[in-house]
Amino acid sequence: MTYELYYWPGIPGRGEFIRLALEDAGADYVDVGNQLSSNGGGAGAVSEFLHGGEMGKPHFAPPVLKAGEIVVSHVANILQFLAPRLGLVSDDDASLVWANGLQLTLTDFVAEIHDTHHPIGSSLYYEDQQDEAARRATIFVQERLPRFLHYFERVLSVNAGNEAYLVGTAHSYVDLSLFQVVTGLRYAFPRAMGRLEPEIPEVTALVDRVSQRPKLSAYLTSDRRLDFNEGGLFRHYPELDG
Amino acid sequence: MTYELYYWPGIPGRGEFIRLALEDAGADYVDVGNQLSSNGGGAGAVSEFLHGGEMGKPHFAPPVLKAGEIVVSHVANILQFLAPRLGLVSDDDASLVWANGLQLTLTDFVAEIHDTHHPIGSSLYYEDQQDEAARRATIFVQERLPRFLHYFERVLSVNAGNEAYLVGTAHSYVDLSLFQVVTGLRYAFPRAMGRLEPEIPEVTALVDRVSQRPKLSAYLTSDRRLDFNEGGLFRHYPELDG
Repeated sequence: MTYELYYWPGIPGRGEFIRLALEDAGADYVDVGNQLSSNGGGAGAVSEFLHGGEMGKPHFAPPVLKAGEIVVSHVANILQFLAPRLGLVSDDDASLVWANGLQLTLTDFVAEIHDTHHPIGSSLYYEDQQDEAARRATIFVQERLPRFLHYFERVLSVNAGNEAYLVGTAHSYVDLSLFQVVTGLRYAFPRAMGRLEPEIPEVTALVDRVSQRPKLSAYLTSDRRLDFNEGGLFRHYPELDG
Repeated sequence: MTYELYYWPGIPGRGEFIRLALEDAGADYVDVGNQLSSNGGGAGAVSEFLHGGEMGKPHFAPPVLKAGEIVVSHVANILQFLAPRLGLVSDDDASLVWANGLQLTLTDFVAEIHDTHHPIGSSLYYEDQQDEAARRATIFVQERLPRFLHYFERVLSVNAGNEAYLVGTAHSYVDLSLFQVVTGLRYAFPRAMGRLEPEIPEVTALVDRVSQRPKLSAYLTSDRRLDFNEGGLFRHYPELDG
């Protein structure tokens, strides 16, 4: 099976959560948005696919994954679909709903991270909502960032004897997603994260462990791994960093 | 099976998406948050359950559903768990991922609706972020509200010959959730919805059909159905309504 990932080119964004799972599992996939448009890819191909394309069903926003005849949209939905097929989650009901619940908490966290630089509207430039962004980011750094990170620290701490894993006793796709969120936060909010990280040793240990997985570490140093930048989800604006 | 729903008392909020599925299917459940605290319920019981309670696993936010030994958090996750058990979705892979993708689009929509009155922080009162709310709501009413509603109109329109259903040829939990969102929007943004509804006849027809389902219509006129109010997700502030 060759999976097809449809996501905007040039930014890690929400597509990166899918890339990490595919890369960590060594799955065969095409990143359509980042293909040359002369090769059938690029933003135009993503846009066309969202409108329904050959399958007839419209999708509200990328990422969207095509797996043969099945088309799946939304990060948490795609990962939930892929994970049992790629060996990235235990296949019992309790693990599946627990993993998906954690992933949906990460989804909410990511939306709040995005809205620190776009509190008024995604159609406006950051520069046109900078005052509101400063106000939202202050509350984010003081209240929401510690609340989310302490939550994941607690989840790891109560997973008795298995502190390195969010779900049960093994590596899962949710570990990969938490890795990506923490890595993005270190890029976007280095001062705030520098103060907070000593309080979340289990989270930091998980991020270290994930970064050392053989296939993933090869991916992270490859040119397929896109740098964080100010067109994406995690943006470094020093004035928003506490 | 008696399901236990953990959600804050006194508001429909995100808990209502779960109540609608349980009520429409005639399932046996206890709404713990809205029970008298002398009977083991109330906000205190919800709060305690979130912190892990007997099951040992913390949840970031309600709603949470307890189904015997399984505990599930997040609206989309709970509905995905319940729906096959309650006959509220077709049980094939393609329908399940399509239904969950639509539900996650509704999740995003609901978060944007909430942020029209809380663009800066949920820990602040509306009155302390009223200027920013006015700015965000203007963009919401002009851009996001039509974008989301036209999307669902299109999904219904391309479902050839089955315009009354979002998923395949039958009623599903996603229809119930879209019903709740449109009903909430009519409460919160009556002027904007009055202008928009003529453009989304399939959505309006779906909402009408859902409201006439026997068990659901009995629920909607019962005292278990909580009124929308300004402590909840859908708030009517005339100054935000276009």
